[in-house]
Amino acid sequence: MILVPELISLNSETLANQTRPDFPILDQDINGHPLIYFDNAASSQKPLQVLNAWRNYYEHDHSNVHRGAHTLSRRATEGYEAARDKVAKFINARSAQEIIYTRNATEAINLVAYSWGMANLKAGDEVILSAMEHHSNIVPWQIVAQKTGAVLKFVQLTKSEEFDLDHYKSLLSDRTKLVSIVHISNTLGCINPIAEVITLAHHYGAKVLIDACQSVPHMPINVQEIDCDWLVASGHKMCAPTGIGFLYGKSEILNQMPPFLGGGEMIAEVYLDHSTYADLPHKFEAGTPAIGEAIALGAAVDYLTAIGMERIHRYEQELISYLIPQLQDIPELKIYGNLNHRAGLASFSATGYIHAHDIAQLLDQEGIAIRSGHHCTQPLHRYLGITGTARASLYFYNTKAEIDAFIFSLKEAISFFLSIDLLQQQD
Amino acid sequence: MILVPELISLNSETLANQTRPDFPILDQDINGHPLIYFDNAASSQKPLQVLNAWRNYYEHDHSNVHRGAHTLSRRATEGYEAARDKVAKFINARSAQEIIYTRNATEAINLVAYSWGMANLKAGDEVILSAMEHHSNIVPWQIVAQKTGAVLKFVQLTKSEEFDLDHYKSLLSDRTKLVSIVHISNTLGCINPIAEVITLAHHYGAKVLIDACQSVPHMPINVQEIDCDWLVASGHKMCAPTGIGFLYGKSEILNQMPPFLGGGEMIAEVYLDHSTYADLPHKFEAGTPAIGEAIALGAAVDYLTAIGMERIHRYEQELISYLIPQLQDIPELKIYGNLNHRAGLASFSATGYIHAHDIAQLLDQEGIAIRSGHHCTQPLHRYLGITGTARASLYFYNTKAEIDAFIFSLKEAISFFLSIDLLQQQD
Repeated sequence: MILVPELISLNSETLANQTRPDFPILDQDINGHPLIYFDNAASSQKPLQVLNAWRNYYEHDHSNVHRGAHTLSRRATEGYEAARDKVAKFINARSAQEIIYTRNATEAINLVAYSWGMANLKAGDEVILSAMEHHSNIVPWQIVAQKTGAVLKFVQLTKSEEFDLDHYKSLLSDRTKLVSIVHISNTLGCINPIAEVITLAHHYGAKVLIDACQSVPHMPINVQEIDCDWLVASGHKMCAPTGIGFLYGKSEILNQMPPFLGGGEMIAEVYLDHSTYADLPHKFEAGTPAIGEAIALGAAVDYLTAIGMERIHRYEQELISYLIPQLQDIPELKIYGNLNHRAGLASFSATGYIHAHDIAQLLDQEGIAIRSGHHCTQPLHRYLGITGTARASLYFYNTKAEIDAFIFSLKEAISFFLSIDLLQQQD
Repeated sequence: MILVPELISLNSETLANQTRPDFPILDQDINGHPLIYFDNAASSQKPLQVLNAWRNYYEHDHSNVHRGAHTLSRRATEGYEAARDKVAKFINARSAQEIIYTRNATEAINLVAYSWGMANLKAGDEVILSAMEHHSNIVPWQIVAQKTGAVLKFVQLTKSEEFDLDHYKSLLSDRTKLVSIVHISNTLGCINPIAEVITLAHHYGAKVLIDACQSVPHMPINVQEIDCDWLVASGHKMCAPTGIGFLYGKSEILNQMPPFLGGGEMIAEVYLDHSTYADLPHKFEAGTPAIGEAIALGAAVDYLTAIGMERIHRYEQELISYLIPQLQDIPELKIYGNLNHRAGLASFSATGYIHAHDIAQLLDQEGIAIRSGHHCTQPLHRYLGITGTARASLYFYNTKAEIDAFIFSLKEAISFFLSIDLLQQQD
């Protein structure tokens, strides 16, 4: 099904109803109940269009890329590079050369840390992160800091648990060489003011990397407009399979960076004692790449583009505005982050009452998939004074009816643990 | 189709005939001729069993792994780890903890180079490679040598273009810290004496890495028997999709190695100023892994195991013994490597007559896919005094009839270029 955005009404349920037939996994019972998949911030599901693109590639066109004179190799190369063009257009990169395929966003950040970081950071240089970063945007910089003597600084949160722009400004100085910040927090759901973050950093000559894992799948992103130096995202969170993600980088910066992984594909000439390297983007893609997965990522971009990223964003805003007040109505819950301005996810706890893991397990008995734990943001959880949260995270195929069922089961679960009856209280 | 090895006769055509229905890609015409796929050393094709396992995962079980309390996350984790068990058994590792998933063999070698190499090599230490190594087993060591001051030494070839064991022995010394050698050359087809290479290296206390990309898909491999310290392979050369490969390492060595990529999944605890790391194998698998691809790799291992690796090896030996004499009969060709003892691939050139690329393009017009170029072994080609070769590489689904058609078209191509008639000469 290719959606024609113009023909689709803005009825709140329409987007989910129109797209759900594309997602066979959603049409199943879990523990005797229809699956409600609210774990999209961890990984999204995949539409038939993506699954078919992958399979079609292996049933008709597979071969290794770039080095073959035969038809299949040409087809594979064309498919692989056409997908790169699609990704470049999707985020409005200047050229497909600015898109480097990686396994996931984590590898993309490590690529920048090992290549740019090791070559450019030295003792005393400062790297600014935030307290809400995912482990993937903390640990690589710890490793580089240990090796180079660079110092990590962390932007704290405001009282409303948002990015503290004033604290950020106070950390910036001529020592700041890099700012690496999440666009949308996978735990708090806040949409960080990255345009202002980037402008301020550039004023000090610092480079900026944006972790866009939770934004690229959910809203329009224009890398030229926000003027980030690098941006990373994971395919599996945006309807593509696992095993593929990408690094966007300004070509003038990528060109100056030394290679990261060495091997085939990324070289120009190899001698026994030295090698010369290929041009962008191949310089950073050593060995046989994830060809089928890149082609499927291209199909995912086609699918999302056909729906329209603005429309996905609006629909998810409608869903989260429907969810939050109902969570607020449950007195045992604490919801984290700004309640009025956020992306389509909500982390909450019933600390003192129920462990988040128990909530998730009870909901699973009702067919509802939410995540519990630290969501790879242990420092943030420590900052918030908790060890874990439960998190419901939405995508365009979710519905208000699913939110109703989730809230019903959540109240049931809390009632069960506290031996009260939240459902009756509400009636 | 699950094959029961006991019921299959040793008739030379039987294995290909029985397995070909599993490979839909092979049932197509290219340029008006039935596809003959002789580019298996670059990448193999994928059977329906593997394509179905991948799709089944995304249609029923997909979620992120390891951190979820819900049913899909449990299923995804079980599938992902069950595949690791299959890979471990396939090469007879002591435990699944000794299997680290990577994107491909290239990443696996880089992991060892960055983690073990950077932590253990110092100025003056020696690393022994060979002149026939793939770029993926040269460039990572050049990068580490540049950073550490370690020295790379290269084993030369014998007059019969094989691994020179005497030269190897002369290079070994107490300065040797690592030997990293290809098992089967992707260009020469020689099967190197890795058991002896490993025993000799261990005598000097050196570690040994085996690049098994061209052996794991084609013959039984027993890592405990050969006693290598690490072994790498790529899934896409052994019937699995792209985007997945693995590093085998002895657990006592992997345990001592520092992490490579940082991020989620690979940590125990993350603090703002430091982190502690997860146990094996997760310590080396940062971020959301290639879950679907790992599960498909497990299905590929099931498929190969059902056929039997000994049987695959015997069948391919029969094919190459059928191919080589027919290539030798063409006087314009030079065939590289030992003609009597080799794996199922042949690199050849008609230097002075035709460029390898032209041979490949003319064969493509007949539906025959072979590779031309340096096959990511530029130093070897330079050693042999040539810039490129044409290479036909076989797998268990190829047939003697395909070899006949290939030889016929190869003679046609040479005749066309030289304005002679090789086909008539032979009659």
